[in-house]
Amino acid sequence: MLRVGIIGATGYAGAELVRILAGHPHVELTTLTSRQYVSERFDAIYPALRGVVDMVCEAYNPDVICDKADFFFTALPHKLPMAYVPELLARDKRVVDLSADFRIKDAAVYEAHYQPHTAKDLLAQAVYGLTEIYREQIKAAVLIGNPGCYPTSVLLPLAPLLRADLIDGEHLVADSKSGVSGAGRAPSLGTHYCEVNESYRAYKVATHRHNPEMEQILTEQAQKPVPLVFVPHLVPMSRGMLSTIYAVVRPGVSAADIRACLHDFYKDAPCVRICPDGGVPDTRNVRGTNFCDIGWHLDEKRNRLILMAAIDNLVKGAAGQAVQNMNIMAGFDEIAGLDHVPYPV
Amino acid sequence: MLRVGIIGATGYAGAELVRILAGHPHVELTTLTSRQYVSERFDAIYPALRGVVDMVCEAYNPDVICDKADFFFTALPHKLPMAYVPELLARDKRVVDLSADFRIKDAAVYEAHYQPHTAKDLLAQAVYGLTEIYREQIKAAVLIGNPGCYPTSVLLPLAPLLRADLIDGEHLVADSKSGVSGAGRAPSLGTHYCEVNESYRAYKVATHRHNPEMEQILTEQAQKPVPLVFVPHLVPMSRGMLSTIYAVVRPGVSAADIRACLHDFYKDAPCVRICPDGGVPDTRNVRGTNFCDIGWHLDEKRNRLILMAAIDNLVKGAAGQAVQNMNIMAGFDEIAGLDHVPYPV
Amino acid sequence: MLRVGIIGATGYAGAELVRILAGHPHVELTTLTSRQYVSERFDAIYPALRGVVDMVCEAYNPDVICDKADFFFTALPHKLPMAYVPELLARDKRVVDLSADFRIKDAAVYEAHYQPHTAKDLLAQAVYGLTEIYREQIKAAVLIGNPGCYPTSVLLPLAPLLRADLIDGEHLVADSKSGVSGAGRAPSLGTHYCEVNESYRAYKVATHRHNPEMEQILTEQAQKPVPLVFVPHLVPMSRGMLSTIYAVVRPGVSAADIRACLHDFYKDAPCVRICPDGGVPDTRNVRGTNFCDIGWHLDEKRNRLILMAAIDNLVKGAAGQAVQNMNIMAGFDEIAGLDHVPYPV
Amino acid sequence: MLRVGIIGATGYAGAELVRILAGHPHVELTTLTSRQYVSERFDAIYPALRGVVDMVCEAYNPDVICDKADFFFTALPHKLPMAYVPELLARDKRVVDLSADFRIKDAAVYEAHYQPHTAKDLLAQAVYGLTEIYREQIKAAVLIGNPGCYPTSVLLPLAPLLRADLIDGEHLVADSKSGVSGAGRAPSLGTHYCEVNESYRAYKVATHRHNPEMEQILTEQAQKPVPLVFVPHLVPMSRGMLSTIYAVVRPGVSAADIRACLHDFYKDAPCVRICPDGGVPDTRNVRGTNFCDIGWHLDEKRNRLILMAAIDNLVKGAAGQAVQNMNIMAGFDEIAGLDHVPYPV
Repeated sequence: MLRVGIIGATGYAGAELVRILAGHPHVELTTLTSRQYVSERFDAIYPALRGVVDMVCEAYNPDVICDKADFFFTALPHKLPMAYVPELLARDKRVVDLSADFRIKDAAVYEAHYQPHTAKDLLAQAVYGLTEIYREQIKAAVLIGNPGCYPTSVLLPLAPLLRADLIDGEHLVADSKSGVSGAGRAPSLGTHYCEVNESYRAYKVATHRHNPEMEQILTEQAQKPVPLVFVPHLVPMSRGMLSTIYAVVRPGVSAADIRACLHDFYKDAPCVRICPDGGVPDTRNVRGTNFCDIGWHLDEKRNRLILMAAIDNLVKGAAGQAVQNMNIMAGFDEIAGLDHVPYPV
Repeated sequence: MLRVGIIGATGYAGAELVRILAGHPHVELTTLTSRQYVSERFDAIYPALRGVVDMVCEAYNPDVICDKADFFFTALPHKLPMAYVPELLARDKRVVDLSADFRIKDAAVYEAHYQPHTAKDLLAQAVYGLTEIYREQIKAAVLIGNPGCYPTSVLLPLAPLLRADLIDGEHLVADSKSGVSGAGRAPSLGTHYCEVNESYRAYKVATHRHNPEMEQILTEQAQKPVPLVFVPHLVPMSRGMLSTIYAVVRPGVSAADIRACLHDFYKDAPCVRICPDGGVPDTRNVRGTNFCDIGWHLDEKRNRLILMAAIDNLVKGAAGQAVQNMNIMAGFDEIAGLDHVPYPV
Repeated sequence: MLRVGIIGATGYAGAELVRILAGHPHVELTTLTSRQYVSERFDAIYPALRGVVDMVCEAYNPDVICDKADFFFTALPHKLPMAYVPELLARDKRVVDLSADFRIKDAAVYEAHYQPHTAKDLLAQAVYGLTEIYREQIKAAVLIGNPGCYPTSVLLPLAPLLRADLIDGEHLVADSKSGVSGAGRAPSLGTHYCEVNESYRAYKVATHRHNPEMEQILTEQAQKPVPLVFVPHLVPMSRGMLSTIYAVVRPGVSAADIRACLHDFYKDAPCVRICPDGGVPDTRNVRGTNFCDIGWHLDEKRNRLILMAAIDNLVKGAAGQAVQNMNIMAGFDEIAGLDHVPYPV
Repeated sequence: MLRVGIIGATGYAGAELVRILAGHPHVELTTLTSRQYVSERFDAIYPALRGVVDMVCEAYNPDVICDKADFFFTALPHKLPMAYVPELLARDKRVVDLSADFRIKDAAVYEAHYQPHTAKDLLAQAVYGLTEIYREQIKAAVLIGNPGCYPTSVLLPLAPLLRADLIDGEHLVADSKSGVSGAGRAPSLGTHYCEVNESYRAYKVATHRHNPEMEQILTEQAQKPVPLVFVPHLVPMSRGMLSTIYAVVRPGVSAADIRACLHDFYKDAPCVRICPDGGVPDTRNVRGTNFCDIGWHLDEKRNRLILMAAIDNLVKGAAGQAVQNMNIMAGFDEIAGLDHVPYPV
């Protein structure tokens, strides 16, 4: 059994890690840290898990927790992992970081959108944990920068088509929608029930921090600069994310080409499901699971490919993909602990 | 007092007409027809209106109802109005039709997306009831083809910019989202609570019937063919619609140009509110009202204008705009009966 | 026009007062105070009201605001009104207080459930503003203790039956359910979207502060001590409250007796609607309105009367009833400004 | 591996059985029947299960399906199981029936609330499948009448206290609330999204068919007639049920007595969790799980015990309890296949 610790276990992504790892066949959860709930039982904070997890939260102390665990997830607001991760790596631990701190290769880009980076030397060795695209690098990684939820939903459908040069890198638009849990557990006016219910709105229009993260990977996949117009929206639901993506297709590209490209690229990917022709992904169908469901429609009259990708923002968009990456790093079955059967309703 | 009848009063759009007209200062509701609820009290079907409306539904009989009313709203599924409207006009009544039957000027386009048209001779005289754009023609109209909800939310932000040639007619994308009431009151699996709740999905991807309706008007406004890529989505909420629209701006166009164009065009329009810079429209803010809130953001780095428009699909997207058109046709204050103060929460 | 000020205008109840009074035919809103948003436009806080209300929030200063207004609503957390109301009354203003500070006649009871009372001398003259029950006293009042939302929904159905001695004062149970707006606008974990959505739970079980408020009035109406078992619950919706009340009927009391009692008592009350036999009240039917819908069922086999009352917690449960009381105090039509036509859906 | 068939697999309870059994370690799903979807893939009806279940629905034919499976669940509307179950038992199969057909011992009571019973001879041998109460009888059963969702949530908290005579059998009130999935998958106006959202109402007030089912078991547990006043309500959420139950306590009974009774009774029950003192059950905490969470509060001032029980209506209230019963009948671990880790949010 791999001894695993979760640093920042009481936020939504951390708690989702607890949920998944509590049922993982090859993992023993040995330490949960929390800043807010030191010495409190985890199941007092999340009563859903009473009778399932009986651990007590502890403060972050690298010496103590590194005695207990060999693999760590850091589920913290960005900036904190920059301080913690070097301490963990120095003790020969492997880490999947769910924040933005190790996702962006160019420190200047990171610093333009976040804050000064204090662990730049780790950026080169960090692997971007978009599993289906970087599986080979992940196998050998000691540090994963786990992707953001929006990037996961936008990059998985686009990467194969850009690689195959079936779509133009110009005029890419991603109109994305997220459930409220993506905003985390800390109360705010923006996540107050009455302010979200019966409401639909965009936010951070073309200014969201996931935009450069996506452009970095798109550019890498296309091997030339790919600008992405990106607008996130908030949907009155707890979990789920859908990105609707608009791309101009290369001349002569047919629906059959699109279909073949997507099916071929993901034929061995257990967490990606390509919808049948005419089918559309629905956030409800991936709720609680590590699936990314991808649908597509070619608007031939207007020469535009419409891609749609649905994920659970807390699973494939955060904790699930993090565990998928751990599985690969540890040599486990890629979906160990992730074979949750989704609710039919 | 204008004597008004509603043909098809018990669907959601019809009932919303009843709601608005019950509080209209210059209107007397004199007849409500229903196919399903003949001889039943309206407030037995909609108990919310007990003590407010005490009318009984009757069957559609043109001779009977034309004795009672001088102005009619037809809130029926398309195809029925083609049969009824000629009978009403023949009796010198004026009509606002909320279906698609009289929106599309080219009968061939209509027939390609709906069914054979049996009242083609009326298409030329029907006025497209997008109030802020066709106000002058509406004044003299006897028959209004009231716009669909999606077209209203897409056309109001785009029309001024296309007219002013600030945006390119190419590469237009409208990613629209609707609350569930847009699907009407008839039960179906797609509107079953458990199938919508915690769900987000697209539908009729690039194949929705409102697409040609929008392209007709965009083309007319731009005076050249304007293709529109259009994807509607279903949001787990009852009322509200938001369209996010992506347009390429003409070289040299600045944020100041966009701002000035929108503010100037709508400076005398009581039902359109342009958001302050940086503000985003929210469906919650227009709930129950005839407002269309428009926000915009210029992504200068990627040369893309993002427009967002929020309406209540049942009000500005249906019944409210219909009443606004009636007000103009009858010489009333444009917002008579539409000065509903929105809920703060 | 009555010059009216709202002290605490930016909470949910205060904003609802703004909404209602903005459309009141005999009222001019002249001052809005806020602790949090001094010098900010009200419509920047509540964009729904852009174009409807163009006032700026000011700090509470009795000298300044008493120059501007003759009638005040205090929509503040309890404890603050105890300090403010004496200053307003001393300047010959009339006040409707929406907090608990002036609802409970016995200062000792108040202090046992809230905190020390610093304006006890006003308790005797304060009138409990349950309009339909205390209409006569309200006419002459200068200070109203406006009822809580739960008490309004529980007392309106029970008062007539207790007065008429049709039900036993023993074994009364009120199982009440509230939408989330009842918890106010301040963000908290308990009102975080993800913690409320798809959730149903009781809270403050048999320990809610509205319990003594209700027992005070029930006891007064029955003219003997009436204990009430009371459990509030939180419902995943923004607005609305339903109380289901269980009472043992007196021997020999029939359904006809119940029906006659309720219809007779409320025959001239414009804001109370008794459901037809077999009908049940639904929070949706009173949304945004000042109606209290009352339904009832006599379980003859088990000798129990079941009463159900639905209100909008922010309207008849707070701001609407406050305006209803103002109307009566000022000699206006009782429902002036309150004739909002409810949404059919 | 036990070969299992589900008769009526495409309703919500049937699909939930598929979800649970697809992950059951000792079960092989061998046949799914459907009346509506014969020859269709199950995952075309429930796309959430794509990649998880690849079976095709077939028509009910006892000869065919009895060749395939040795244990059956019937998840059908009542009346149909009366016809099917005798055919299955005649072929030496064991059956858990999720309808009401085999729950009520007294055929006259059944017929008064449902319809004529055509398999009365099986009533005596059918065991009421409230697992924690009838575990011993279930072990030897060949036919289980699986409890309704409301009865499960009401009986589990009451049974121990009635057996121990800590509460009075008089004045019992159960105020229950259900998510919408309890109404099934067939579309109707009552389950239309817009009719449920932002709505809260009672239904079948004191006339629900689960009432006699509950009184039968309460009477059996108390060994004297126990009337139960019962009012179900509909909550705007998909899954979840909470019953709030009011009971008069016997003289001298203390909080410690209640606590000890509940903890002792359920100390070996893996699916029942007694909340810590002051804790309240929340439907969210049991979502997707077979847990029944029970909370309680003694209102000493008013001599009333308040019990609250939360279940997932589709799991412990239907499919999960059915599988729990199968596990016991088959000699498996009681919670095999039911160790689903609940979502923290």
